[in-house]
Order: sequence, then C-alpha cells, then structure tokens
Amino acid sequence: MTTSVNRQILLKSRPEGAPGPDNFELVERPLPQAPEDGVLLRTLYLSLDPYMRGRMSAAKSYANPVEIGDVMVGGTVSEVIESRNAAFSKGDIVLGQAGWQEYSAAPGSRLRKLDPKAAPVSTALGVLGMPGMTAYTGLLEIGQPKPGETVVVAAASGAVGAVVGQIAKIKGCRAVGIAGGAKKCGFVKDELGFDECLDHNAPDLARQLEAACPKGIDVYFENVGGAVQQAVWPLLNPFARIPVCGLIAQYNMTTPFPGPDMFSVLRKRLLIRGFIVWDFADREQDFLHDVAAWIRSGKLKYREDFVDGLENAPQGFLGLLQGKNFGKLVVRVGAASGRA
Amino acid sequence: MTTSVNRQILLKSRPEGAPGPDNFELVERPLPQAPEDGVLLRTLYLSLDPYMRGRMSAAKSYANPVEIGDVMVGGTVSEVIESRNAAFSKGDIVLGQAGWQEYSAAPGSRLRKLDPKAAPVSTALGVLGMPGMTAYTGLLEIGQPKPGETVVVAAASGAVGAVVGQIAKIKGCRAVGIAGGAKKCGFVKDELGFDECLDHNAPDLARQLEAACPKGIDVYFENVGGAVQQAVWPLLNPFARIPVCGLIAQYNMTTPFPGPDMFSVLRKRLLIRGFIVWDFADREQDFLHDVAAWIRSGKLKYREDFVDGLENAPQGFLGLLQGKNFGKLVVRVGAASGRA
Repeated sequence: MTTSVNRQILLKSRPEGAPGPDNFELVERPLPQAPEDGVLLRTLYLSLDPYMRGRMSAAKSYANPVEIGDVMVGGTVSEVIESRNAAFSKGDIVLGQAGWQEYSAAPGSRLRKLDPKAAPVSTALGVLGMPGMTAYTGLLEIGQPKPGETVVVAAASGAVGAVVGQIAKIKGCRAVGIAGGAKKCGFVKDELGFDECLDHNAPDLARQLEAACPKGIDVYFENVGGAVQQAVWPLLNPFARIPVCGLIAQYNMTTPFPGPDMFSVLRKRLLIRGFIVWDFADREQDFLHDVAAWIRSGKLKYREDFVDGLENAPQGFLGLLQGKNFGKLVVRVGAASGRA
Repeated sequence: MTTSVNRQILLKSRPEGAPGPDNFELVERPLPQAPEDGVLLRTLYLSLDPYMRGRMSAAKSYANPVEIGDVMVGGTVSEVIESRNAAFSKGDIVLGQAGWQEYSAAPGSRLRKLDPKAAPVSTALGVLGMPGMTAYTGLLEIGQPKPGETVVVAAASGAVGAVVGQIAKIKGCRAVGIAGGAKKCGFVKDELGFDECLDHNAPDLARQLEAACPKGIDVYFENVGGAVQQAVWPLLNPFARIPVCGLIAQYNMTTPFPGPDMFSVLRKRLLIRGFIVWDFADREQDFLHDVAAWIRSGKLKYREDFVDGLENAPQGFLGLLQGKNFGKLVVRVGAASGRA
C-alpha cells in the first residue's frame, strides 16, 4: 500500500431543488481496517446513478436517506488489497456498495466476485449491473412487451433507457427513444438500433411522438416524468403498461408536478406500477444470462461515459441530473494494480 | 299483450358538466317485433349505474357513446312475452341489455335465463350481477388483499363498494368504508360489518382516515377520485394496490382534476390499474358461485333502492350521481305477469 489516506465524499447538506457542489464535501480520513472474515478494498469504479438524488433528501422512500456527514452511497467495483476471508484473494475484483470513497472495508458476504476475462469489470455497474437489470425486469416483468407493440422510453441513451429499447427490439417491438440532442438521438437510432429517437428539446415533441408512434404506445417505460410524460399520455393504447422507474425531470422541482389523468387510467385500463430492481431480485440469474448472451451476439450494445478521479464525482453527478452524460456514467476512482 | 306502445327514454343532448333532466327525452314508439330466433321482452327492472354518465359523453372510451336520439343503454331483467327461440318460453325471466325502455326485442344469444327461485331476480343487476362482479374481480384480481391488510373503499353503501368491503372482511382484512352521511355510515358499519365507515362530508376526513387506518392502506378500491383520493394517497403503504373502477366525484368536472403524485408511485412501488368487469369475464362462474354462497351463509348482505316507473329513471340517475341513492339503484319498470 502506498497511502494511508482514504479520500471520501460526504453529504454536507440537503439540497432544496437542484443540488450543487456545496452539498458535497471532500474529506481525508485514515484507511479502514479489514474486519474479521472481511476484506479491505480499493475502489476502481464508482457508479453514478439518478437514484442518488433521492438519497440526498430526507423524504421517506424505499431506502433510508444518506445522513448529513455520511459518505454518499453508490455501487462500486473494487480490488481486494487485503483479505481476511478465504473466499477472496488479494487482487480479486469485486462488486460492492462502497460508496463515494477510495478505500473501504466490507464483510465478504456483501461482495460478488467479478471475472475480468468475461467482460470489462465496469459493466458490472451498468449494462450487466443494476441499471441493466432495472431495464430488463421493469420492461419484461411489468411492461410485458409483445411482438408488434410500440415501446417508448426516455433518457434513451442512458444506462437504463438504452437497454430498455434494445430489449424491446429483441422482443419484436417498435422501439421509440427520447433523448437530449441530435448527437444522442443519432447514437440511439444508428448504433443502438431503435426505430426512432426524438429530441426532448423539440418544441413540437408531442406531434413528433404521435408521428413516431402511428399505432399508439403500448409500453411507456417511465424514467423522466414531466413534459415527456404529458406528451406520451394521450397516445397510450388501451391496456398499455407503464413501469415507473424514475422521474428525473421532476427530482429537482420544489412544487408538485400534476400526476397523470386518471380518466385515461380508467377508460384505457392502464397499468401503472412503480418498482425498483430489487423487487425482482429472483430474476438476477436470468438477467445475467440473457444480457451477457445478447452482448456476445451483438444484439445489445452499451456505451460508458467515464469521469476521472473521485474529486470529480460531484460534478459528474450534477451533470447526470442535467442529462450531460452520454452513456452509463462511471467514475474511474483508481487504476487496478494488475489484473483488471 | 295489453299495449302497443313502447315508452323509451332517449339521450336528447350531451351534458356539459352535471347532466340534468333536459338531457333526456321520454318518447312513445310502436312495439318492436321479435326477430327470427329471438324474443320480445317486457322490462321488469332497469339497472342505473355510474358508468352511464360516461356513455352520455362523446369522449372516446372502452365503449361507444350513446348517440343523440338513441335509447339510453342499461342492464335489464325482463320477462319473455313472445318467443321465436326454442330456448326461451313465454314467462321466462332473462338478464339482458334492453336499456331504458319498457319493451325490447333481442336475439336469444344475448340473454341469460334467471331462476326466480334462486334469488330475487333484481339481484342479477346488483350483488349477483355486473356491480357485484366488478367488486369481486377488481378486489381479488387487482387488489389481491391478504389477511391483516387494510382495504379502503368509498361509495361504501353502493352497489360495488358494499361488496368490496364485505369480501375484504371475508378475506381477513380490515375494511374501512367512506360514505355520504351518518345513516349510510351506520348501515355500512352495523349491517355490512365494515370495521369503520367515515362520512366523506367530514371536514377532517384526512385525519379521520388516518385514525381509521393505523397500519396504513394496502388496497384502495377507487370508485370516486377527487378529495377522497387525495386523503387516501399519503396513507398508502409500500406495494399498495389501487384498482381503478370509477371516478364518480370527477365525472361532472369540466376542468381536469390533478392526477395522483407519481413520486409516491415510485417510492412506494404502487400498482394502479384501471379495469372494467369484462376484462375478467372468465371469472364469472367463480363470482356467481362464491357470492351466491356468501349470501346464503349470511356473510354478504345487499341493499336495493327502487325507483318506480320508467319515467322516473332520469331523476333516479341524476340522484345517483349525487349519492342520493342508498344501495343498488334499480328502476321497477313493470310488474311480472306471474312467475317473477
């Protein structure tokens, strides 16, 4: 070990409306100790995800908020640098929940070993990790897309949306994405193979969406809420399904945004269901099997957007909330010593 | 036959906001002819139901609107007065869809014969008919109540709500009703056996509801929308289910009522699903079997509210939209000639 210092990023204060750099604090702390039967880890990659906005607030949710002064939470890929657990060796690469810090100590039971030969290990935070499984379970378990149906997803170049649309195509659906700007839209259509991708900044988004969905919308995978939701709603077909995964356009609003029209819910017999990925934890092996196979066969592509250095995590995260990332956002916290 | 005149009530004009007597027109027409393989029917009972408000509007829905000048639609119990179909004899009592008129002609395929000895035939329009099956399927198929859970239903003394709460009790749940006024609330609690029933006119309804649901709400059977929905929403538990059956408090609003908070849907992983009874047509035999058995064993009670004479159907219906009925609202259109 070349350092005895562990840099961490703490939640300094709770945002009202949009968070800013002042809500975070970079501190230096001593290295933790590996617990009995546990390991000491050096963070290689830290995942940045929209759900973290929710954890910054005190509002009651499915998970406890981060306390003021605590390390920000987050999924991580780390290297074992010291092991007191026979299941892990120095140099092993593991998936865990170390949060926004350079070093962490963890019991072995909370870690999953990754095989660097099977896939780049950063993908365990994206297409082969929580965001990929969110897309897979929300679309297939709640959305239940059938061949010939139309699936719409916003944030379509992002970690979840990109997988939603590609699985929709694999299942024989028409996939229509919504993304921010011509560059992302081009990528979604040309690289990811969606049938259409619309710019959410277009003043005539509702009209464009109607043209892109000539047979209406059967599945709306809800990532964003706000104006996109309002454009989608009148186009929903009878018996449409709406998995509610996120509402990123509404996270920083300080006044309530009107909910969707309940007459449509009644008349069209819509199904709306909020979920988080762990509601479908029993589908993890199917997810890993299917998505890995689709990646190998070229049916499913992914794009990562790297930020270098833990100190740049807050800026990266703030950009994520504004849609500045292009692909799954990951912080490169440290380089692996050898194997990864 | 003692008459050659068929009185009918037509939709004269579409209401904007609350309908009134002027939207209806009573006319006299010649008696129809029984078609080949069909029957001529005399209406005994006409069902009045909230869904008819939707049919008066031109808005696209799961069913076509009634056209201006057409007979208002509605479920009916009728007596066969002439038969050209071997399956039906003069004097048989049948369930059909004759609408708001005294006589009708129908193909035999659209009718179900009723057994007057099994139950009063008017119940085929209520507890053993469409409203009862709406309660049964919406609660059991979408609400999926589990023992110990709390089920809330408004319009609790009405045709659907009364059955929802009683089935909730049969399934081991806490049943909390909401109804209009002390008399209905007393009936719901004392006669139907709900654990609580609150007056929707109470200025502190939200507080009362919180007190009546100390463990939160797991199933909210949505009949009414509006202020009741807003009182219910903050009390919903994680994974609560909301079958959306009706929005009677909103039917006459001319400006959109704000939909429910989508953050709750996300954070609490709520399930909201609109339905109509025929979405679960395959459950009809189970429904008839179970509800008839519960009635026989005294576990499920029902109350009917009769209006006498077809000419009084509009006034009865307008009262229904204002909650003036007390129990399942049925028009006695004619007396049976003998058997019923």
